[in-house]
Amino acid sequence: MKGDSKIRTDLALEVRESFEEDDVEIKGVVLEEEYLEEKDVKVTTVIIKDEKGAEAMRKPIGTYITIEAKKLQEKDDDYHASVSEEVAKYISKLVGDATEKGVLIVGLGNREVTPDALGPWVVDNLFVTRHLIREFGDEFGKKNHLKSVSALAPGVMAQTGMETMEILKGLIKETHPGIVIAIDALAARSVERLNTTVQITDTGISPGAGVGNNRQALNKESLGVDVVALGVPTVVDAATIVNDTMERALQTQGFSEGEIQSFLHEVSDSKAIHNMFVTPKNVDESMKCISYTISEALNSCFCGKE
Amino acid sequence: MKGDSKIRTDLALEVRESFEEDDVEIKGVVLEEEYLEEKDVKVTTVIIKDEKGAEAMRKPIGTYITIEAKKLQEKDDDYHASVSEEVAKYISKLVGDATEKGVLIVGLGNREVTPDALGPWVVDNLFVTRHLIREFGDEFGKKNHLKSVSALAPGVMAQTGMETMEILKGLIKETHPGIVIAIDALAARSVERLNTTVQITDTGISPGAGVGNNRQALNKESLGVDVVALGVPTVVDAATIVNDTMERALQTQGFSEGEIQSFLHEVSDSKAIHNMFVTPKNVDESMKCISYTISEALNSCFCGKE
Amino acid sequence: MKGDSKIRTDLALEVRESFEEDDVEIKGVVLEEEYLEEKDVKVTTVIIKDEKGAEAMRKPIGTYITIEAKKLQEKDDDYHASVSEEVAKYISKLVGDATEKGVLIVGLGNREVTPDALGPWVVDNLFVTRHLIREFGDEFGKKNHLKSVSALAPGVMAQTGMETMEILKGLIKETHPGIVIAIDALAARSVERLNTTVQITDTGISPGAGVGNNRQALNKESLGVDVVALGVPTVVDAATIVNDTMERALQTQGFSEGEIQSFLHEVSDSKAIHNMFVTPKNVDESMKCISYTISEALNSCFCGKE
Amino acid sequence: MKGDSKIRTDLALEVRESFEEDDVEIKGVVLEEEYLEEKDVKVTTVIIKDEKGAEAMRKPIGTYITIEAKKLQEKDDDYHASVSEEVAKYISKLVGDATEKGVLIVGLGNREVTPDALGPWVVDNLFVTRHLIREFGDEFGKKNHLKSVSALAPGVMAQTGMETMEILKGLIKETHPGIVIAIDALAARSVERLNTTVQITDTGISPGAGVGNNRQALNKESLGVDVVALGVPTVVDAATIVNDTMERALQTQGFSEGEIQSFLHEVSDSKAIHNMFVTPKNVDESMKCISYTISEALNSCFCGKE
Repeated sequence: MKGDSKIRTDLALEVRESFEEDDVEIKGVVLEEEYLEEKDVKVTTVIIKDEKGAEAMRKPIGTYITIEAKKLQEKDDDYHASVSEEVAKYISKLVGDATEKGVLIVGLGNREVTPDALGPWVVDNLFVTRHLIREFGDEFGKKNHLKSVSALAPGVMAQTGMETMEILKGLIKETHPGIVIAIDALAARSVERLNTTVQITDTGISPGAGVGNNRQALNKESLGVDVVALGVPTVVDAATIVNDTMERALQTQGFSEGEIQSFLHEVSDSKAIHNMFVTPKNVDESMKCISYTISEALNSCFCGKE
Repeated sequence: MKGDSKIRTDLALEVRESFEEDDVEIKGVVLEEEYLEEKDVKVTTVIIKDEKGAEAMRKPIGTYITIEAKKLQEKDDDYHASVSEEVAKYISKLVGDATEKGVLIVGLGNREVTPDALGPWVVDNLFVTRHLIREFGDEFGKKNHLKSVSALAPGVMAQTGMETMEILKGLIKETHPGIVIAIDALAARSVERLNTTVQITDTGISPGAGVGNNRQALNKESLGVDVVALGVPTVVDAATIVNDTMERALQTQGFSEGEIQSFLHEVSDSKAIHNMFVTPKNVDESMKCISYTISEALNSCFCGKE
Repeated sequence: MKGDSKIRTDLALEVRESFEEDDVEIKGVVLEEEYLEEKDVKVTTVIIKDEKGAEAMRKPIGTYITIEAKKLQEKDDDYHASVSEEVAKYISKLVGDATEKGVLIVGLGNREVTPDALGPWVVDNLFVTRHLIREFGDEFGKKNHLKSVSALAPGVMAQTGMETMEILKGLIKETHPGIVIAIDALAARSVERLNTTVQITDTGISPGAGVGNNRQALNKESLGVDVVALGVPTVVDAATIVNDTMERALQTQGFSEGEIQSFLHEVSDSKAIHNMFVTPKNVDESMKCISYTISEALNSCFCGKE
Repeated sequence: MKGDSKIRTDLALEVRESFEEDDVEIKGVVLEEEYLEEKDVKVTTVIIKDEKGAEAMRKPIGTYITIEAKKLQEKDDDYHASVSEEVAKYISKLVGDATEKGVLIVGLGNREVTPDALGPWVVDNLFVTRHLIREFGDEFGKKNHLKSVSALAPGVMAQTGMETMEILKGLIKETHPGIVIAIDALAARSVERLNTTVQITDTGISPGAGVGNNRQALNKESLGVDVVALGVPTVVDAATIVNDTMERALQTQGFSEGEIQSFLHEVSDSKAIHNMFVTPKNVDESMKCISYTISEALNSCFCGKE
């Protein structure tokens, strides 16, 4: 079972794919796929229902929605707008009524490192309203179809000296949002998914996710408020790509699973690729596009027609 | 007395200068000047000793140190290093022993608006250590002459929907720094002082300071911990420059103080220059220089020899 | 006649306005105004017909079209699209058939100095095609409604050590475009026009235009090919704003024109405001918007439906 | 012989290393190594003396100097200064007296794509002087120890629609520099060399070099003036890293050279990693450092003591 080998991915969808037979049912895990033909967008929902499923998937119980939109790489305004609508639809579904008490959107990551800058870039384009509603009153918000939106891109621990969790905990106690939406860059297993895929989950952010930075979980348990996480894979770990390419080559050559595992073990010890990541040549440009698409989705969720 | 006219400046030094006779003593205000000839740096200390002085100066009781370094505009590494040393000396003086419990450095302002980006840019170059000391222990810090430094550039209310005060209040409760250092861009009255002057004060940040953004005070009263503020004037209000140029021209022409005030009143009503500021053409470049100089000063204060 | 006083503006429209009576005809200068009500856009055409007009206006003979769109400051995608259409219409009108031989778009200015970065930012968003047409053939261009577009943002003399004219001259000899479009940031007299106005002219760029940088003319005479210049005022000279505010105040107070001129002379000698400019606080944001609007206009002119 | 397999590297040093036995002499190629102990810098000179050597190395006849400075990753100002000195020394050696007629420094690459931005970033920090010497005369230059330096970062073909060669050809005809120095980001084979290595060569830039962009050669033949190229490896091709890691693993497992080549062939066909590159997580930061170090080297070469 491929699922046994060390899969480095933040996408529940890719964890699910790593099980050998796609059609075999994994206990405690429900998989739904939908292809929106007119939009050329594929939506996959992975629901981890119980501890059994969580163990198999090595991810917390909850819902993981993945929106795959291959053409996000192209400069097609209409396509971006329609993907933005889909993203908005699923965010709305997962956040539910909690937004009545206000939304805090947190852009995780380091704005100085392009593939890690998704969160800060999304926050840069948000329409924030909390201060307006506090100044002009709830009526103003209702009339203009505005939810109370606040936002922060706190930076990473190497920049702040503080855990993101510490920064958010105090903030939430002071400002009492009804829900937190955390935006983050993810690591995928497949290069085809880079900057063309959005994962939305109601499980928050788990330790060890992302580009290899350990940080404490951001979820209801740690923050005292529900956390919806929205992520886009922007990198593949260099070790993962070496691993996968090698595995495929060895399988083609007819090697046994045991021999293959022995090679992979060899590779995973290679220091040369430690702390290296693989990213497409146009990463800056394609991240600018997708971060704008996500900002627009969030703006349309919480700020009327805009 | 010129002090009566509306002076828009964040520099205590310029408020003091606005009183007609420089040598006249203002009750409750002590003025000390020092010119470091070998360094070509002028240091002026304004001490507001009591309520009487605070009223005359329209600034809180406390110490205001201004370091003027005209050559900061030039690309002279040695000069920058020696200014950095002076800045470090006076920061150390004002923060005192409070750093033993850790320093939180806050970069105020909007990194998307160049003349307001001083705070974020300074934070970008800081050496933060709090997470290292928490991981490797107090001994590690002592051995390497590191104080515990954390840092945040939270952005402005239009970006976050939250008062800076709200963000910091929670953060301070979670992380318990011994002192806060707030870095901010200031407005000056004189264009000669732009990007060549550093003001350091133990009074924190008062409402209405800066480029016209009203925000609540950041000081011991609001945050529960001492706040040292370090600021650099990066803009002159357009109204101020019009006012001052006009006043000088009218005085040269022999007009009476009454006539002059009547003109100035006329000008201050002009909407054309509302929300406009005056800045040198090389503002991006000169702010990069001075923000680096300040980062180095802070790094040397709290991180040993570095 | 106000036209006598030193008017620092790059907008022909503002030079024309500086003559005392708007309805008085100036010999050799034709003025046409059109207000597009449904679009909320005002288009003014100043045509300098002969040497007499050129002398009065202190600008070369030619056509100057000014598009004023006050709401460009607001974030309204539809409005931006409709302004973009107007800009495209007048560019097409001025460039005519010369585009058949290819267009070279030049982004003048310094990308490191925000109010001077208009040209480089416009070029950043252009769709360039010359290399595609050379690779895939003229048929490819025709089928896709693409003109041959090349582009360069050479930087300013302080960055390159070369006159823009020297850089372009060689380039034009090598690549033979049918027309050059030069994009540049301008200085206006009125702050209301900043980042809301586009001037398009078939006279190229004249010496001394812009933010006070002297550079040689870019026009048919110097480059050997027609030059259409497109500019947006992004700054007001500090001296201009002081001058104008003062003039208005003095007029209100009933001073004679002679007394006023004597004051203005006084002010214009003030070194304090030399090399200073006045710019709105949101200059970075509003320049991002308008540069994008102009890029889209150029893309739609030369690259089919895009 | 390893040299037979497809090595994707722009470093002559790495091509030389790819030959199986380091000590075996390759006909027509001279190798000199020097380790500067007190500086902790290694300098390797590869001289390709004749066509035989050029064929074996698949690189033009000429001198290739590689400066390896492992500690460039660390923030150590003294170390950077001493590396900068070494770089300056070898640039001076290769450019020789040609600088008397002026130097044109060209920053190749795309400033919007971080690992390709080395050239533009180096140019951003250069001290250019050509316009000053033209204004104040040759005497001014001599008195201040300034050579005539001009600079351009023209952007890549996808941004300009023009070959870099076309842009430079015209420019050189207009401005007549004595020598061109071309700065470019390179691809290496080994991740350890990223952002810690500088290659300087008198052979100019050859087609197909760099991050996979085909462009025409920049050398004496194409430009009519000598071209010294200075490059820093900032990426490893994803295919290269997969290839090398795999080869090592297979060798460890005792496979024959034939079997290994068969696998590598398999891998090189994998589309998944086409157009992907591997880069360290801190690429933005480390490129800022090394580009500054190179600017300083060039400034010290041509602008006296600065």
